[in-house]
Amino acid sequence: MTKRKFSGPLRGMRILEIGHFIAAPFCTRLLADLGADVVKVEPLSGDPVRKWGDSVDGKSLWWSVHARNKRSVAVNLKAPGAAGVILRLVRDCDALVENFRPGQLARMGLSNETLRRENPALVIGHVSGYGQDGPYRDRAAFGVIGEAIGGLRHLSDHPPGTSDLPPVRVGVSIGDSLAGLYAALGIVSALWQRDRAAGDGRGRTVDVALTESVLSLMEGMLPEYGETGKVRQPSGSRIPTAAPSSAYPTRDGKWVLIAGNSEPLFQRLCALMGGTDLAGDPRFCDNPSRVANVAALDDMIGAWTCQFEAATLLDLLEKADVPATRIYDAADCAADPQFRHREMVREVEDPLFGKALTHPGIVPKVTDDPGEIRWCGAAIGEHTDEVLAGSGFTLPEIAALREKEIIA
Amino acid sequence: MTKRKFSGPLRGMRILEIGHFIAAPFCTRLLADLGADVVKVEPLSGDPVRKWGDSVDGKSLWWSVHARNKRSVAVNLKAPGAAGVILRLVRDCDALVENFRPGQLARMGLSNETLRRENPALVIGHVSGYGQDGPYRDRAAFGVIGEAIGGLRHLSDHPPGTSDLPPVRVGVSIGDSLAGLYAALGIVSALWQRDRAAGDGRGRTVDVALTESVLSLMEGMLPEYGETGKVRQPSGSRIPTAAPSSAYPTRDGKWVLIAGNSEPLFQRLCALMGGTDLAGDPRFCDNPSRVANVAALDDMIGAWTCQFEAATLLDLLEKADVPATRIYDAADCAADPQFRHREMVREVEDPLFGKALTHPGIVPKVTDDPGEIRWCGAAIGEHTDEVLAGSGFTLPEIAALREKEIIA
Repeated sequence: MTKRKFSGPLRGMRILEIGHFIAAPFCTRLLADLGADVVKVEPLSGDPVRKWGDSVDGKSLWWSVHARNKRSVAVNLKAPGAAGVILRLVRDCDALVENFRPGQLARMGLSNETLRRENPALVIGHVSGYGQDGPYRDRAAFGVIGEAIGGLRHLSDHPPGTSDLPPVRVGVSIGDSLAGLYAALGIVSALWQRDRAAGDGRGRTVDVALTESVLSLMEGMLPEYGETGKVRQPSGSRIPTAAPSSAYPTRDGKWVLIAGNSEPLFQRLCALMGGTDLAGDPRFCDNPSRVANVAALDDMIGAWTCQFEAATLLDLLEKADVPATRIYDAADCAADPQFRHREMVREVEDPLFGKALTHPGIVPKVTDDPGEIRWCGAAIGEHTDEVLAGSGFTLPEIAALREKEIIA
Repeated sequence: MTKRKFSGPLRGMRILEIGHFIAAPFCTRLLADLGADVVKVEPLSGDPVRKWGDSVDGKSLWWSVHARNKRSVAVNLKAPGAAGVILRLVRDCDALVENFRPGQLARMGLSNETLRRENPALVIGHVSGYGQDGPYRDRAAFGVIGEAIGGLRHLSDHPPGTSDLPPVRVGVSIGDSLAGLYAALGIVSALWQRDRAAGDGRGRTVDVALTESVLSLMEGMLPEYGETGKVRQPSGSRIPTAAPSSAYPTRDGKWVLIAGNSEPLFQRLCALMGGTDLAGDPRFCDNPSRVANVAALDDMIGAWTCQFEAATLLDLLEKADVPATRIYDAADCAADPQFRHREMVREVEDPLFGKALTHPGIVPKVTDDPGEIRWCGAAIGEHTDEVLAGSGFTLPEIAALREKEIIA
């Protein structure tokens, strides 16, 4: 393949993505942000995310971020001969990532065994709803369902008996994103072992399930249930084990988060609230007492906060050095001086839109080799010729593949 | 240091953790699960998480998971001479991870420069609330506040005007866990570049902020706001761009998630609902129409679902091949046959408790080299002598350090 200039800790790594929707493409966005050369294989009609969310002239704004730093190769994987194209590309890659339903890639002629005949040291990452084996393996992988099975949805709710509404969806595709993160970690880990001086040169297989990525974050839920039989319940805007920490109302109808859940912080909050009797109240003398009496405590704090406009309240809390914040929306995030200082919100020229768009920055920030946003989400097949030529396809071969509508 | 038998793709990697609470220790749990030898430095009184959540005889059950596969070395970092101990340990490590407030490690005599004098190729991972520089760098890093600043809290709510309650906290410390995941990815990426044959042998610095880890997951939020000015709002239990997908009530007072948000799935759901006029209704003829009329659509589906007990409803939906699930709680997760099949829920002997505890499995699953749960969260300083001796401390040196209460 042709050489492009890359920086970042994954410079020199090449990844083939046969992904769609969120999980696998989010995995490769992370890898590409860190410097990997990601070649995304997409259908001739493009990844469906090209139409998702708000768009301008039919072009999704999300796509600009989701596909940034990747090269797009358009291949009709259902066409006879397509698997042969992929197998030639795979020879030049360190890893392949895909998120079809389990078994579908093999049915297209791209089983792990076939892939490793071309490239024995290939690391293969599979991302799916439930994993590559087991009784649920063939179920459709819907994010909201995976999040519910992983145990997260149950806890994203108000305490039992306080609301007639269902538990909310975390407002983003958290299960898919987590699966993408875990896949990225697994792939780079496998490559570290393969490529280091004392490593074994082996291509490993990484099998990430959305449900499992969520379950993995559930803290002490499993041993606590196993040992005490206690089923953890949602706690709304509070933390179940520390108080006070919640959202409190203001006079102008907003919510302010206050974290007063350590002794010095609680003392500072009490001093700020002044006239009230919080500090001397035995119900609130230590954290276990405050947790046991949290409703009364929060009522008192709420009665105090709702005397103030949010801006005034936040000013008071900041001066008293009590951690607090308003709840940021998109406009707040975009304007935040810390995000701007750290280039976590930045403007990036997108030729597809003919202007600069606002992008999130590169996480994790590698201070001395941060990588860069080299380009925004590409047009369908923008790099097909370049990538194929780089992998040794001749111009007549490329023309023939295009003629047969195997590539575009 | 002494040799222990490890498996998993990070076998042969050694990490020094100077962490506490969640973010850095979660990072190292991930690395240790994948086979890294993690040495956790904790105060003589132990990491506070040893007391968090449900406990048995004063021992936190969460700790069994949170600290598994790590070796515990107890060091009083405030004691004169402690920095010297760390600097000797660092010589044998590939990376160090810490989550003090920015600058605190340097004040203890362990600046990046000092650390790299001992080990020039050391990868250093800093995890903090807001990052190592910028106007907010010195603010306290409370998870709930970071999640709000990252934009997630605003969206974890019912639509504006439908509830008087505040947006909920996702029921786990999602911001800390995300920061830990990003730190793990950054560290392994830096080590891949350092250690591969064509690599540069350099120790990089990874600077992960909790707020930024959350912001990084916000999909198209930033370019959408930047371009259209639209501020994304919460959508409760629905997905804003696809319908029907929500939680629906049942006769026995439960919620069932149904994802009927593709043409074939919606057709199957309509057929199952039978008598209703959904299928032919022009308001629901395609996804944009369904999204525009989602309240009416969900009312009709809810009127149908609440005729059934949850178990009956799920049975009907499964037979009709419409993706659906009840919302799992801890008991459901622990019993799930898929999690059990994939060893994502398993029993592990914990000598500290004198019995087997229920643990989550190892994610990501590396099929051909999955790593193992070698041991559960250790006692404070359980491995102090072993680790120090392995790094060349003599028995009299170790005794003298203990005598001075620098180690335990």
